[in-house]
Amino acid sequence: EAGGLRCRVASFFGGHKYFEIAQLEIQDVRTVYAPAVGIGNFGGETDNWRWPRHTGDWSFFRAYVGKDGKPAPYSKDNVPFKPQRFLKIQPAGLKSGDLVFVAGYPGRTQRHQTFEEVKQTTEWSFPRTIKTYVDQIAILEELGKQDKELQIKAASRLRGLNNTLTNRRGMLEGLVKGGILVQKQTVQKELEAWIAADPGRVKQYGEVLPALRALQAEVEKTRERDAVFAQLFSASTFLSSAHTAYLLSQEKAKKNDMDREAGFQERDWKRIREAQERVQRTLDARIDRALLRYAMGLAAALPADQRIEALDKAAGLTPGMAKADAEKAVDAYLDKLYKGTRLGDGDFRLSLLDKPTTDIVGSKDTFVDLAVALDPLYQEDHAAGKKRQGADSRLRPRYMQALLQKEGGLVAPDANSTLRVTFGQVKGVDNKDGLYWKPFTTLAGIEQKHTGEGEFDAPDRELEAIKALRGGKKTPFTAPDLGDVPIDFLSTVDTTGGNSGSPTLNGKGELVGLLFDGTFDTIASDFLYDKVRTRSIHVDFRYALWVMSEVDGAGHLLKEMGVMD
Amino acid sequence: EAGGLRCRVASFFGGHKYFEIAQLEIQDVRTVYAPAVGIGNFGGETDNWRWPRHTGDWSFFRAYVGKDGKPAPYSKDNVPFKPQRFLKIQPAGLKSGDLVFVAGYPGRTQRHQTFEEVKQTTEWSFPRTIKTYVDQIAILEELGKQDKELQIKAASRLRGLNNTLTNRRGMLEGLVKGGILVQKQTVQKELEAWIAADPGRVKQYGEVLPALRALQAEVEKTRERDAVFAQLFSASTFLSSAHTAYLLSQEKAKKNDMDREAGFQERDWKRIREAQERVQRTLDARIDRALLRYAMGLAAALPADQRIEALDKAAGLTPGMAKADAEKAVDAYLDKLYKGTRLGDGDFRLSLLDKPTTDIVGSKDTFVDLAVALDPLYQEDHAAGKKRQGADSRLRPRYMQALLQKEGGLVAPDANSTLRVTFGQVKGVDNKDGLYWKPFTTLAGIEQKHTGEGEFDAPDRELEAIKALRGGKKTPFTAPDLGDVPIDFLSTVDTTGGNSGSPTLNGKGELVGLLFDGTFDTIASDFLYDKVRTRSIHVDFRYALWVMSEVDGAGHLLKEMGVMD
Repeated sequence: EAGGLRCRVASFFGGHKYFEIAQLEIQDVRTVYAPAVGIGNFGGETDNWRWPRHTGDWSFFRAYVGKDGKPAPYSKDNVPFKPQRFLKIQPAGLKSGDLVFVAGYPGRTQRHQTFEEVKQTTEWSFPRTIKTYVDQIAILEELGKQDKELQIKAASRLRGLNNTLTNRRGMLEGLVKGGILVQKQTVQKELEAWIAADPGRVKQYGEVLPALRALQAEVEKTRERDAVFAQLFSASTFLSSAHTAYLLSQEKAKKNDMDREAGFQERDWKRIREAQERVQRTLDARIDRALLRYAMGLAAALPADQRIEALDKAAGLTPGMAKADAEKAVDAYLDKLYKGTRLGDGDFRLSLLDKPTTDIVGSKDTFVDLAVALDPLYQEDHAAGKKRQGADSRLRPRYMQALLQKEGGLVAPDANSTLRVTFGQVKGVDNKDGLYWKPFTTLAGIEQKHTGEGEFDAPDRELEAIKALRGGKKTPFTAPDLGDVPIDFLSTVDTTGGNSGSPTLNGKGELVGLLFDGTFDTIASDFLYDKVRTRSIHVDFRYALWVMSEVDGAGHLLKEMGVMD
Repeated sequence: EAGGLRCRVASFFGGHKYFEIAQLEIQDVRTVYAPAVGIGNFGGETDNWRWPRHTGDWSFFRAYVGKDGKPAPYSKDNVPFKPQRFLKIQPAGLKSGDLVFVAGYPGRTQRHQTFEEVKQTTEWSFPRTIKTYVDQIAILEELGKQDKELQIKAASRLRGLNNTLTNRRGMLEGLVKGGILVQKQTVQKELEAWIAADPGRVKQYGEVLPALRALQAEVEKTRERDAVFAQLFSASTFLSSAHTAYLLSQEKAKKNDMDREAGFQERDWKRIREAQERVQRTLDARIDRALLRYAMGLAAALPADQRIEALDKAAGLTPGMAKADAEKAVDAYLDKLYKGTRLGDGDFRLSLLDKPTTDIVGSKDTFVDLAVALDPLYQEDHAAGKKRQGADSRLRPRYMQALLQKEGGLVAPDANSTLRVTFGQVKGVDNKDGLYWKPFTTLAGIEQKHTGEGEFDAPDRELEAIKALRGGKKTPFTAPDLGDVPIDFLSTVDTTGGNSGSPTLNGKGELVGLLFDGTFDTIASDFLYDKVRTRSIHVDFRYALWVMSEVDGAGHLLKEMGVMD
């Protein structure tokens, strides 16, 4: 756009309102400073979503523009960007009870789902995810024990599974504790009563909730099958690669790029190829087979009215088959599948991306054959999904409109990755009975947690700086009320994934921290905001300033920012 | 004694002072009430030494005396004892900051050990215990995995090892954190300087510290060997049983009971036999061999100047032997040992206790042969220990006298199982950085921790009573400041093992709780009192009253005690 503006139209209230948002897009952004990994990721996965936390999660970039002050692609002749206004750092920091603001880009929340949607999530989706993730984690860990190479190849997948598992458990725990179903039912009944109380409203909104309910019921009719069907593809890179190549060839055959399905248009082709190149590092037929075997086991156990018939036919499965028989059939079929495929070979796999459909189908690869056999069900589901989405796009804005009208407009829209300013208070929280989480952590926690290994490995120079401090060295970044340099703090601000890196401001709009996480009890707030237990986690800027000046010798940056003389 | 008095002379300040203590001994004491195990031991080993705690550790007895009001043996004609004074229960309880007293019988503390003694404890004894206990726990757990029967037989031994391991780790952590060695060195140097500053003191005390130091140095010369030697006997019940029978036969041969060694006099014989009967339940040659094998491995690795020569000769071990060779020799010797013994047979083992020395030596049992071969070193160590103890008994009172004189008498004696009254304050404590332990726990914690299994299995009727409370039922035992019934609380009173069951009194001397534990950070206070972190754990009497009246239907006891109308 003109002058480097990037514009986007964002949907609010489920499509009830739209705003156009314009942002200045600076293309030349350079890393200026990042703390050591032993500071920036201190505590790692172990401490993720946890308190007390001692993570120094911040870094600095400098934005560059052309000599005319306008955004420009990278050039060594570019000059630092001078914005009209910028956040000033307040090195005096905060204390418990202080007002804080956060300006950031929270991703997605689902606080306005219907009772039926939340019921499916809490009673079916999350428990199912937890169960199947636990199983898959056990499978991958067992494989890793057998072989160091498999352990390395499975590591990133395991991390992802564990991360989602923790998230879903946190969600479910929070939602159940929060009594979300009862709350949702109450809210929905009130809305229905409000609609029913007025003939005008009945006319305008009467059909909305029944129609959303019908859509949800339709989803639930085949949810077991749909979940297993999707899992076949997510389990096996062999299968998903074959299917991607098959879909791509069909879309490529279309003349007009606009007629192609989203994700398969010309602009996507490079990304598709890169993904297939990247996957080679972690691809292993043993991992692929173990996870596909698990997914096929789930398929074998599907109820008679929700079968994946193409798989049944290919693998010789029937509804109600004894588990041992099904396993035998699956194992025999897997033997055949992995014997008859060349998809483990990166060159072959990439070559498929350039071939027309007839060549792919004619490649006589067992996984291509399976992908082609499964495709009709994929197409059927895909079409049904699009249809439901269309219906939802017409109903959802009216549902939100009814809610808004009932509440006199006092309903916050769900987060949608657009700029949002929230406020709250620096505040500790009662955790378990008898345990209080204090609002600030300090350097003392680094000394307590440091083991010199893995996720708790503070850099030597930080430990030396702490030692110097304990020996009496003065620093302006000590919090007087804590008697130590603060590291992270808790606040009541309402945030979610996507908010990481949001600047935290004090009551005067001065920069005092960076938000980077929430506590475990907060995860469920994506569905149900819990005003007692919700806490965001921020890095205290005094820690950043202390590390940069006392540990990393980056005082010149603090001078540039006007923090130090 | 006359009128049922039991008298005891107790040594204070390491023998510097002695007091005679008289107590009324009531022989007929009957259990009146104890809570269910799911209340009295809620949290079990997992929560032992931990906070937040939710253990309902109390019970009630009633003392009976003869109709004349004097102590008498059990008789159904006995009548309840009516003391002149008794503790009155104050059902209003305490709040944070309140003054509390505890009157109880703390066991042993070692706060006046010399620098050299503490150094050996922190740098050698505790680390060695931790290392060897971790190894032995691993050995027993591995055995338990192989066989359910072994698992059951090893259970109580494992529990003991784990309990001591936790204690030693707590001690060591606390002592290292508390900087005990530096503190001890400072105190000792000050004492030495104080003695050196005055010729009279030099004459009176000048030789004491050097002599205690020399005693300690003597202990340390063979400490590796002595520890392993003791471990052979504690590892193997086969070996210790054989040795006990051998020692007993020698002591029995002495005419005069007073000439017999302590522990082998006539009054001890019954106890020795009962111990040998009791051990049969957990005796298993596989466990015995695995632990003895471990101890022999340690013996094989002893330095050349601290060998157990009789074992070397028996098993064919030599100093500096390669580990694999030593293991081979030990395994071959163990084969021989367990093949040639009948000590696994309870009848045979017990029969040895009645035999004269010649018969025992002539029994041709491999373990008896080993015990007899090891006995000379046992006797040598035993005699040296007695000699050192004698020297210590002469030096220690003078050391304490010097300390007392230097401090103008303001030194508390070490605990010695006599009555002691201590005072403190109800107070939470900062645990790890960012974590505060609140002073009270409440019923909410039972709801959070209850799993319905193992150590966290609250009785159904308690859960129902909580539910009733949550539903709005009133009880006078709710703490207004907590909004819930309190369970346990923390205080700063200085206590140790032996204090469990001590009454906790408020500022007016009214009964408000029972002390039953300390926090993990407190364990090290046996050596070094940490006034910041030390906390005792008490059951709040409001919990006892609530459980007895609302859960267990024991309101009549509360009436008897004047708590309820």
